[in-house]
Amino acid sequence: MESNRLSTASFPVLDRRSWLKSTGMAFAGLTVGTQFLSSSALAQHEADRSARRTEPVRLSGNENPFGPSQMATMAMMQNLERSFRYAGVETAALKKLIAEKEGVAEENIIMGVGSGEILEIYGLYLGKDKGEVVTVSPGYMQMVRAMERMGTKVISVPLNDKLEHDLDAMAAKVTANTKCVYICNPNNPTGTIVNPEKLKAFAIEVSKKCPVFIDEAYLQCADNFEANTMVGLVRDGHNVAVARTFSKLYGLAGQRVGYGVMKPELVKAVQEYSTGSLNLLGVVAATASLEDAAYAPETVAKIKAGRNALIDVVKGMGKKYAEPHGNFVFFQTGMPISMFADKMRAENVLVARPFPPMLDWARITIGTPEDMAVCHAALKKVLA
Amino acid sequence: MESNRLSTASFPVLDRRSWLKSTGMAFAGLTVGTQFLSSSALAQHEADRSARRTEPVRLSGNENPFGPSQMATMAMMQNLERSFRYAGVETAALKKLIAEKEGVAEENIIMGVGSGEILEIYGLYLGKDKGEVVTVSPGYMQMVRAMERMGTKVISVPLNDKLEHDLDAMAAKVTANTKCVYICNPNNPTGTIVNPEKLKAFAIEVSKKCPVFIDEAYLQCADNFEANTMVGLVRDGHNVAVARTFSKLYGLAGQRVGYGVMKPELVKAVQEYSTGSLNLLGVVAATASLEDAAYAPETVAKIKAGRNALIDVVKGMGKKYAEPHGNFVFFQTGMPISMFADKMRAENVLVARPFPPMLDWARITIGTPEDMAVCHAALKKVLA
Repeated sequence: MESNRLSTASFPVLDRRSWLKSTGMAFAGLTVGTQFLSSSALAQHEADRSARRTEPVRLSGNENPFGPSQMATMAMMQNLERSFRYAGVETAALKKLIAEKEGVAEENIIMGVGSGEILEIYGLYLGKDKGEVVTVSPGYMQMVRAMERMGTKVISVPLNDKLEHDLDAMAAKVTANTKCVYICNPNNPTGTIVNPEKLKAFAIEVSKKCPVFIDEAYLQCADNFEANTMVGLVRDGHNVAVARTFSKLYGLAGQRVGYGVMKPELVKAVQEYSTGSLNLLGVVAATASLEDAAYAPETVAKIKAGRNALIDVVKGMGKKYAEPHGNFVFFQTGMPISMFADKMRAENVLVARPFPPMLDWARITIGTPEDMAVCHAALKKVLA
Repeated sequence: MESNRLSTASFPVLDRRSWLKSTGMAFAGLTVGTQFLSSSALAQHEADRSARRTEPVRLSGNENPFGPSQMATMAMMQNLERSFRYAGVETAALKKLIAEKEGVAEENIIMGVGSGEILEIYGLYLGKDKGEVVTVSPGYMQMVRAMERMGTKVISVPLNDKLEHDLDAMAAKVTANTKCVYICNPNNPTGTIVNPEKLKAFAIEVSKKCPVFIDEAYLQCADNFEANTMVGLVRDGHNVAVARTFSKLYGLAGQRVGYGVMKPELVKAVQEYSTGSLNLLGVVAATASLEDAAYAPETVAKIKAGRNALIDVVKGMGKKYAEPHGNFVFFQTGMPISMFADKMRAENVLVARPFPPMLDWARITIGTPEDMAVCHAALKKVLA
């Protein structure tokens, strides 16, 4: 098996995509039954890749093509052979690592099949008492909708003129009947972030009356994560819950790993509603992602560069936009979103769904520079 | 990048473990930062493998170390780079493929995070009406416990003297207050199978009074799957639901993919309780598993050989056992299960948890021949 190995000589300095491309080619060769990676097999593979170019550029789902980290990919590769095992031991280890990183007890952590499952089960639990939930419009609705299904009334507060959460207006809507205040920070779809001092004061005050849920799915894409995260409030015993995910900054949306940080008694109560369970490869990838110190700052820089370049295009076309802090940009197209989406699709770019009531605005996810070049060219045509 | 490739010359005839071992070595080399796979790196890797030998042999969780299929492993490897994508498109394709294989409409299929999620959500849905659920003891309790949490009373019918479901005794327990009859076939932990003609007649008759749930998690490990599956009853419109999983025969327990086959209106109602979502690598692995025609018969043969060899040891020690049809054997140890488990652990073998009320019986999962050699030696010592 002398030749059955990978040279790793250039790996540490090799770009992840180039490396995976080369190994990917090897494995593509295996599946088509070639005896060796002949030049014709490589040519075929390149033709396949080029055919894929004609597939739409997907900038619709806030997925992060800069991930997963090399270390996460390695961890998954090394565990492929072990995927016949349930992930109990590995999940326990990940939970412990997360608790250490967050500076809380393990009893404060609830693992979820993505943070989506945390939003669902927290919503189902709180929704059992009906009442009202206070949130913003447009905002991310998964937890709010789970409460609504259980009979909770949704109180939607408009964003301010910068498309930010209007905390004073939200506080004014909190009554004895409020079961939760939900804040997605940075907000989806607008990408705006709340001033951390104001949010902290708001959460401390409001959480005396009802639980406050801070969805930090995109916060790791923002500058100054440490200054902005509200996990410290959970640590200090306030009735605040925080959700986080490996789907966004860590580029593991497909592997469905997220978690919540909240009071231990809430962890227990909320867990009762969970019907999912974590997958081994997702868990080892998430663990490796946390251990890859270089990944996060490098990826935040790439996302930020992508945001800035996209804003330049949008500004250049004279359009308004919300100040972005996630891996996406929300801007005014000046036409109905359905029309804009159709025109962009004709240019081979998929953009996000409508976000009522802002139906002449659009959300575009930051893709690779290659993807964004297609997107920029499309925008210059469609917005002209 | 001339050397950065895998020779695939001997892959098709190469044993999966040998192949993965060699590639695994390459990747192990990468993570420790070696420049090449030096002989010292290989020696270290072998030392690591040998150290792992001292880890317990896990025969406790009905995991299947003969899986996943090579094609599933390939599919996962080829999709590592894409794990930043949500699995929506791939999940829809898998669902379509499953519907075709099962000979039902897509509307009859509900995907789950393992069949465990199907058991949970079906149980939560049916449990909302309280009432009673009829099952056996000892049996698999996940769905029954979900109903019980919602307020349903559990009616447990003893197994017959062959440790099989006693269908007549179960039918006698069905009343106007019965919300479901649950049958795990082959049963867990006993491994016994129900006569298909009798089960079919039972399910047709009882399903006129209440839903019948057939958990076929292990049925693909049995002989004559086609003669034994009850999916035909769903096809014919009976109020029967069937659950199936990729965790057992297909060796993908870690990747959490399962499904249910049931009436379309039940699919919709039950889906409301789901909080999980499928992971990309699990979905592509499941899809590839279904497309690997050779895998299932080969693996069933390996499991059957393992069962027969284990039965020979148990019989040789003069112990009673249940006729096994899953990837495990249930037998009488003649001592309390806690004592037996301790003695086996001392011999480096982990066996399954207690299954009351049969507390001097034990369940052992079929592992690799290497694992089973350790297990057989331990049994000969412990049962002597």
